[in-house]
Amino acid sequence: MAVNQQVRLADRPSGLPRASDWEFTSEPVPEPGPGQFVVAISHLSVDPAMRGWMNAGASYIPPVEIGAVMRAGGVGRVIASEHPGFAVGDEVTGMFGVQDYAVSDGRGVMKLDTSSVPLPTYLGALGTTGLTAYFGLLDTGQAKEGDTVVVSGAAGAVGSVAGQIAKIKGCRVIGIAGGPDKCRAVVEEFGFDAAIDYREPGLRRRLRELAPRGVDVYFDNVGGEILDDVLACLARGARIVICGAISQYNENQVRGPANYMMLLVARASMTGMLVFDYADRYPEALAELGGWYRAGRLVSREQIVHGSVRDFPATLLMLFEGANTGKLILALDGSS
Amino acid sequence: MAVNQQVRLADRPSGLPRASDWEFTSEPVPEPGPGQFVVAISHLSVDPAMRGWMNAGASYIPPVEIGAVMRAGGVGRVIASEHPGFAVGDEVTGMFGVQDYAVSDGRGVMKLDTSSVPLPTYLGALGTTGLTAYFGLLDTGQAKEGDTVVVSGAAGAVGSVAGQIAKIKGCRVIGIAGGPDKCRAVVEEFGFDAAIDYREPGLRRRLRELAPRGVDVYFDNVGGEILDDVLACLARGARIVICGAISQYNENQVRGPANYMMLLVARASMTGMLVFDYADRYPEALAELGGWYRAGRLVSREQIVHGSVRDFPATLLMLFEGANTGKLILALDGSS
Repeated sequence: MAVNQQVRLADRPSGLPRASDWEFTSEPVPEPGPGQFVVAISHLSVDPAMRGWMNAGASYIPPVEIGAVMRAGGVGRVIASEHPGFAVGDEVTGMFGVQDYAVSDGRGVMKLDTSSVPLPTYLGALGTTGLTAYFGLLDTGQAKEGDTVVVSGAAGAVGSVAGQIAKIKGCRVIGIAGGPDKCRAVVEEFGFDAAIDYREPGLRRRLRELAPRGVDVYFDNVGGEILDDVLACLARGARIVICGAISQYNENQVRGPANYMMLLVARASMTGMLVFDYADRYPEALAELGGWYRAGRLVSREQIVHGSVRDFPATLLMLFEGANTGKLILALDGSS
Repeated sequence: MAVNQQVRLADRPSGLPRASDWEFTSEPVPEPGPGQFVVAISHLSVDPAMRGWMNAGASYIPPVEIGAVMRAGGVGRVIASEHPGFAVGDEVTGMFGVQDYAVSDGRGVMKLDTSSVPLPTYLGALGTTGLTAYFGLLDTGQAKEGDTVVVSGAAGAVGSVAGQIAKIKGCRVIGIAGGPDKCRAVVEEFGFDAAIDYREPGLRRRLRELAPRGVDVYFDNVGGEILDDVLACLARGARIVICGAISQYNENQVRGPANYMMLLVARASMTGMLVFDYADRYPEALAELGGWYRAGRLVSREQIVHGSVRDFPATLLMLFEGANTGKLILALDGSS
């Protein structure tokens, strides 16, 4: 008899999450009540933002409660339904949690068309990841043709898409990533004009060489020292998009950008963005992203770990070790 | 015979400027060449930004060169002219430098009408100071009726005007200042709704009490820990105006805002502003500021130190000791 394996938050981590912060539970596979359906989850999205959701305190979204199933986006297939809008066999995406099966009333769940798009890509370039890159770059960042755009975490899920959109829009695009393999992917696979390996010395000097007229848009996924380096290289009127700060998520003392007064020198702005605010514009964005994807202009790179929900804790850590290129996904198809 | 006493930059300070960073020189009072005029300077503007001008390196304005007369705004009277647009007796304002007399070709110099406005007020609420508050609050900060506005350095030159403009525009205004006397001036003289003494503990708690729905606009003149406290109290969509960071100007290691990720949580922005960018809109702003001033709705508080240019170094230090309320001005009418 099938069971629903789940990963629950057992404790709030200090620093990197440890094994003792998680609890594995099993329940019977749920039955749908009236107006509900049940999804068999095939792939889970593994995101840096998850680390923030594990912390106590108010943020843009309530924290995951101790003892609750860990929050996660996912894709899967409807296996039972008492909901008029969802039928058995429908492929769907939603915030299903780190578990094998989820019950839903349909709120926040979207049906997917996999005739020309693989299901996991709806967690990548054609999912929240791609939408974050799209609105962050074009709306918050106001990137336009001829701009010099810098993207950190450029080999990562959001960064790799942000840079590709910037190229499509006629920008000159410089990626920042860790290590030669990622830098190669940034240029060769994702088509950035140049990549800088932040593990090598001289990041600021390289930025000045590659962006001699300054940086017009900085799409920041990492924070920390790299943010300070880019702040020192801004063009007049630059826009910094604060999308994430993965370098700081496990630090007990966040490093604030000491060069923030360059915002005054450059008459620049630094603005935080959250993709959820754009929900009413998802359809237009997905249409444009989908068009680029089908035309071969937008690569969705997914790094898929095959396993079970019990592999979630280790998979999450890969993000903070810089071990992934593209969108990190846990496929619930293994036996571990 | 009259001489032109001058204060020149002798060395670049580390930390607070010291006596050895300055040099006093004397020259004959200059004669105007063709297209020039000579101003007898009566009042010098003493500004926190001056500390930045003493540093080496590119900024929004070139540094004062070693050996050059220290840059300063001033007001005075034309005493000799070979310029068709300026006559002897004209009262004028411009970047005249820390000296008794300045030669000018008229660039950046504006004639003043002192029939209903005292001359030093053109260094205060009706000068660059007031213009900085005006454009910072209304353009960069987009303050509008009903907003909760927080101003740091609220008893200072720019802050006291920014808060008054916010009140005129129908905002609820909270000032942050150092010590009970300044806090009293902020409320009683400048008409803010409330003041918080940052020297007392519990700034963040007080902010939460006074702005229970969060801060919509933060006009920041100080940086440092106070910026972090306000970042923790932002309303959704808040705008932070980076006008200055007086707490950091003499620090060798700037404290960056560790809470900057609250920009993401609140979908907020932090934007640097420089008044010089608005030069083509000065007339409209001065007309509005002047109207408020003459109607008694805008107080221009000037703290005038009487002395000679030799008193400039000590007067500048008053800014960093928090010794002034309102616009700090050195009147060149004394004998020290």
